[in-house]
Amino acid sequence: MDKFRVAVLGATGLVGQKFISLLSGHRMFEPVYLTASERSIGKPYSKAVNWLLPEPIPSEVEENRLISNKELLERNDFDFAFTALPAEEAIEVERRLIDRGKIVFSNASNWRMDPLIPLLNPEVNADHILLLRKQNFGSGKVLKVPNCTSAILTLSLKPIYDAFGIRKVFVTTMQALSGAGIHGVPSMQIIDNLIPFIQGEEEKVESEPKKMLGRLENGEISHADFNIYATTTRVPVLYGHTESVVVELSQSGVSKEEIVRSLRSTSWNKISGLHLPTAPKEPIIVKEEDDRPQPRLDRGNGKGMAVTVGRIKLDGEGRLLRYVVLGDNIVRGAAGTGVLMAELYAEYLKRGELS
Amino acid sequence: MDKFRVAVLGATGLVGQKFISLLSGHRMFEPVYLTASERSIGKPYSKAVNWLLPEPIPSEVEENRLISNKELLERNDFDFAFTALPAEEAIEVERRLIDRGKIVFSNASNWRMDPLIPLLNPEVNADHILLLRKQNFGSGKVLKVPNCTSAILTLSLKPIYDAFGIRKVFVTTMQALSGAGIHGVPSMQIIDNLIPFIQGEEEKVESEPKKMLGRLENGEISHADFNIYATTTRVPVLYGHTESVVVELSQSGVSKEEIVRSLRSTSWNKISGLHLPTAPKEPIIVKEEDDRPQPRLDRGNGKGMAVTVGRIKLDGEGRLLRYVVLGDNIVRGAAGTGVLMAELYAEYLKRGELS
Amino acid sequence: MDKFRVAVLGATGLVGQKFISLLSGHRMFEPVYLTASERSIGKPYSKAVNWLLPEPIPSEVEENRLISNKELLERNDFDFAFTALPAEEAIEVERRLIDRGKIVFSNASNWRMDPLIPLLNPEVNADHILLLRKQNFGSGKVLKVPNCTSAILTLSLKPIYDAFGIRKVFVTTMQALSGAGIHGVPSMQIIDNLIPFIQGEEEKVESEPKKMLGRLENGEISHADFNIYATTTRVPVLYGHTESVVVELSQSGVSKEEIVRSLRSTSWNKISGLHLPTAPKEPIIVKEEDDRPQPRLDRGNGKGMAVTVGRIKLDGEGRLLRYVVLGDNIVRGAAGTGVLMAELYAEYLKRGELS
Amino acid sequence: MDKFRVAVLGATGLVGQKFISLLSGHRMFEPVYLTASERSIGKPYSKAVNWLLPEPIPSEVEENRLISNKELLERNDFDFAFTALPAEEAIEVERRLIDRGKIVFSNASNWRMDPLIPLLNPEVNADHILLLRKQNFGSGKVLKVPNCTSAILTLSLKPIYDAFGIRKVFVTTMQALSGAGIHGVPSMQIIDNLIPFIQGEEEKVESEPKKMLGRLENGEISHADFNIYATTTRVPVLYGHTESVVVELSQSGVSKEEIVRSLRSTSWNKISGLHLPTAPKEPIIVKEEDDRPQPRLDRGNGKGMAVTVGRIKLDGEGRLLRYVVLGDNIVRGAAGTGVLMAELYAEYLKRGELS
Repeated sequence: MDKFRVAVLGATGLVGQKFISLLSGHRMFEPVYLTASERSIGKPYSKAVNWLLPEPIPSEVEENRLISNKELLERNDFDFAFTALPAEEAIEVERRLIDRGKIVFSNASNWRMDPLIPLLNPEVNADHILLLRKQNFGSGKVLKVPNCTSAILTLSLKPIYDAFGIRKVFVTTMQALSGAGIHGVPSMQIIDNLIPFIQGEEEKVESEPKKMLGRLENGEISHADFNIYATTTRVPVLYGHTESVVVELSQSGVSKEEIVRSLRSTSWNKISGLHLPTAPKEPIIVKEEDDRPQPRLDRGNGKGMAVTVGRIKLDGEGRLLRYVVLGDNIVRGAAGTGVLMAELYAEYLKRGELS
Repeated sequence: MDKFRVAVLGATGLVGQKFISLLSGHRMFEPVYLTASERSIGKPYSKAVNWLLPEPIPSEVEENRLISNKELLERNDFDFAFTALPAEEAIEVERRLIDRGKIVFSNASNWRMDPLIPLLNPEVNADHILLLRKQNFGSGKVLKVPNCTSAILTLSLKPIYDAFGIRKVFVTTMQALSGAGIHGVPSMQIIDNLIPFIQGEEEKVESEPKKMLGRLENGEISHADFNIYATTTRVPVLYGHTESVVVELSQSGVSKEEIVRSLRSTSWNKISGLHLPTAPKEPIIVKEEDDRPQPRLDRGNGKGMAVTVGRIKLDGEGRLLRYVVLGDNIVRGAAGTGVLMAELYAEYLKRGELS
Repeated sequence: MDKFRVAVLGATGLVGQKFISLLSGHRMFEPVYLTASERSIGKPYSKAVNWLLPEPIPSEVEENRLISNKELLERNDFDFAFTALPAEEAIEVERRLIDRGKIVFSNASNWRMDPLIPLLNPEVNADHILLLRKQNFGSGKVLKVPNCTSAILTLSLKPIYDAFGIRKVFVTTMQALSGAGIHGVPSMQIIDNLIPFIQGEEEKVESEPKKMLGRLENGEISHADFNIYATTTRVPVLYGHTESVVVELSQSGVSKEEIVRSLRSTSWNKISGLHLPTAPKEPIIVKEEDDRPQPRLDRGNGKGMAVTVGRIKLDGEGRLLRYVVLGDNIVRGAAGTGVLMAELYAEYLKRGELS
Repeated sequence: MDKFRVAVLGATGLVGQKFISLLSGHRMFEPVYLTASERSIGKPYSKAVNWLLPEPIPSEVEENRLISNKELLERNDFDFAFTALPAEEAIEVERRLIDRGKIVFSNASNWRMDPLIPLLNPEVNADHILLLRKQNFGSGKVLKVPNCTSAILTLSLKPIYDAFGIRKVFVTTMQALSGAGIHGVPSMQIIDNLIPFIQGEEEKVESEPKKMLGRLENGEISHADFNIYATTTRVPVLYGHTESVVVELSQSGVSKEEIVRSLRSTSWNKISGLHLPTAPKEPIIVKEEDDRPQPRLDRGNGKGMAVTVGRIKLDGEGRLLRYVVLGDNIVRGAAGTGVLMAELYAEYLKRGELS
């Protein structure tokens, strides 16, 4: 199979780095264009980037010379665009990419709640990709990666929602520094400290999961019908968002064993038969140990694509469920889900299901 | 006024250090005996202690030679005992101190839920001290300092409970390392990490506040009638427990302004007229800034005796209240409350209300 | 005595905050003007500042409205200016302040090596203030606070230089994050990490101490005649620079006891009789414990104005001296030395020795 | 080729974990016995270990049941023993293993300076293995892994020593927490702090490199003839020791380019032709960027077996060389060098050069 030629926009940031890392040697995609901001343009990738990932820079992109988003818009010989741009910058660029017929897999937060745009966490709502049939923005298409915290949360909620129903969710997050980008959180503000606020985050966590858990009916998504109440905090952890979750179930009399069984089943997983290369074998790993999940020990599970659930407890009535879920905010929460979504798109395209 | 002669048990630990610091120069108390474990006995305090507090070791205790708990039990020339011992060690020692007629102000977790023992957070339930009238363990008395997380939480719940009633509380904590003592959490386990579990903590947080918020009637405490659901985690912060709290109020239609007003009022405060030396002027500080409270910036408020509340939000119905509260786990959560409680005891004693 | 009216330039930065803190309630100085950058102008200090110090904001400046440096230059009713500006900004502003007849105590790195400008670490070289007699830049005067690392190092070298002579110094530093300012070091780059490079720092450490240890002769300073070789690194510590020092002495046969005695003596201290308010009683504290000095435990010594020396070792010949020295980079290394220097200036002025 | 059957002693500690990780799937070795302390005996490895490495536990050892050292001594069906025990425990056990004819590759610090025991850093002194010909402790043999800091330092010194000669070395280290083991450094003592002392470390760093750089002549090692002066500190970094090194060369007039060339050459490398599986392609990586090496970014170079050198500077005379070197203390500094040494032993054995 010929590989899709892809561009990565915002390739020097943390999410961009992870895109590069995941696309390197990918059997379906070949990164050809990398974009960056003004001061990096023209430089080879390896010279311009402040590479922070533990794995080394893939050799095939080391010499790739960075171009501007503007220059990218003048090229035509690529198919897909992975964007890791700030929302305010993304709006304009993504619109133009779509106009030029590109398929855009976007991490930017703009348009995520647009009813015509699939907000995909593939295991959870792969079928929402069919919204693309109605998308008519131009000749291209756009699919959105959810907010990192929402992606991790929703993956853990999906099997519970399917099996028991959900009335209400309370979540307190302890989010990693990488979520704010390389320069986001000054060390003077976070060492021996935490910050109980992340700009714009609670609004996202309170809305996006309801769209993802919604049902596609007659080409429209009816959002899930429960409220989420989020308190989001920043803690001195490099990678891995931890979320303390309380779920009021629609049923009572639910046991811990039933919860564990539902989390470990595959029946809810909408891509379990597709063998997409970036899909983790087990998207949800349940840990029995009292002191798990922990960011440093569990963020790498499923190469960063699995979320890890622990501390499962139910109240006496079997209606109030509590657990802690953790996922890699850069992989499951951003670049990994972006790549998985592109694999899903390619699969649906091959099957001719998108038109 | 003659000072009460006091002993500090477990004087070299973190809570012990804070006791020493608070008692130094205190106008009512004079520390005369300091106890420590085997390997420190006989050494001057300043040589034996691994002093970690930012303030220097008070000069008057530098040369005080550490004795064993056993040796202390043979001395008679002291009145009060402040204990900062592990529960398993405390049980035996405290019983003997009581037998010898001492007044024990104890941080150890044993007996906290005993119906005859006051579990005091003075602003919240100073009147529970009257339980002592019924205490008949021996010639002495014992009063308990609540669990650190519970002390901080309950202080913030008290005005809300009084003004609006409480149906249910969910709390996720982010607790400081000092809560586990000097050697409690290895650095290899917590740097770039967090641990979503603290042995025995959730049980305490789910029970102690209900006793403290209970009503003293006919010499008995009827516990407050709502459930608390706690998830307790350890984060890489040195001092200061942060708690993300959801309260389902008994009423609806409550506004943020009403909540703030209740937190800032003094009507609920049971010691506001007493002028106890360690009582903070404002036991609850409300911060309007989005990104507060923060451990490093707010743990020192009221010299560690105030808790700081921020991020106050109510849902559309005005029934679900959310906020973040932070307090110094070593001061408000341990030694400071211990000293305040002793001041309260002395006041009641002076007034002749304890018998 | 009437207080000198003073301005603080760059009052919202970390060094500016410490200036405010030290000047508050000072018996000789009264802060009247505070300057900040564009976006803070017009705001009350307490609203504009991201206050990070453990002590609270002094109440007398809370409502002080920030002005621009430009606006300050139009005021005439102040005497002294404490500047905590970046060097590139300072050059212009300081020149104008001097032109307007102000006495400038400056933390900025420009002009530090100028032969007409005193680079003062008062205990070390108070007499260099007499350079001011020759200063003829305008009607004002300018005195420089040394680089933080150099201030700490030089204080420890001074008694040794006086007693034994110095041939060569090697120093490896482990510097605190606060040295780079509030936004200087991103947390993503320093947690679980260190950075073995600080822009421009080694050049300063290799030159400034030689000026400070130089001799004032005929109105000129002859620099100390030995080489310093510095490697400067950044470590995840909030406050307190630690320096591992090797000194090749001019003599051999020196014992550890002699070194300790010289460090603890006061004979070398050029301000020991002056009773300046900010001068620490003991500018050098020698710790005998193996594991000291430590930033968190020793940076507060002498209220941040003392340096702490430990790990003193001599080789078999008694010629190679090694030790570790630590000091608060914001107090001794910046604002504290600035205020001490102003106190020294006021003293010399009173005595009529400056002209 | 049949694999050597190997035992790992102290398999649950950090170094033990890395041994397990490196031996898993190794083409020459098969781990058959794993020992641990009392409370873990009988448990499957995966249940007993507090696995902290980023890579997952190798599946082939998950079910391996831990035995005691004593029990191991009763087994005969293994060839090699890798020991990661504390020195005081190792002395007895290693002696018995030797008596039973085992080949012991030991991380314990006992006997490292024994003239009959090779202290191997294979690239540096592979030929010292010939000391084994004279070893006559029993039917077995023992080879020692050097102290972590010394292994990293010596690797960087070797090409310089060969090319230019060395008169004197000063080194200040900034060592990772993992060097003290999982429970070695309490978080309360190291967050926002550093400790300028590591028990016993300086003595090792001042002696071991001189043995490793020594010459094997007539079956004896004549130690290198220069002094090392070490100051060793602990910093809040998880993995990776950083060392700031000053070398007084035997020659003057040396240029930076010559130093870089010598570090990058292979002529000094005593195992460069052997193709041992654990040997890194480039044992020394020279970084030109000002701000490297950094622990988090460079400890993984050469899979932890390479050291990274940066900040190379020479004084005006070309005689005083300064640089910073970093290596993974658990891989190059312990388990990796242990495995490499065993590979070297197997190679020499095959060639019949050991008797």
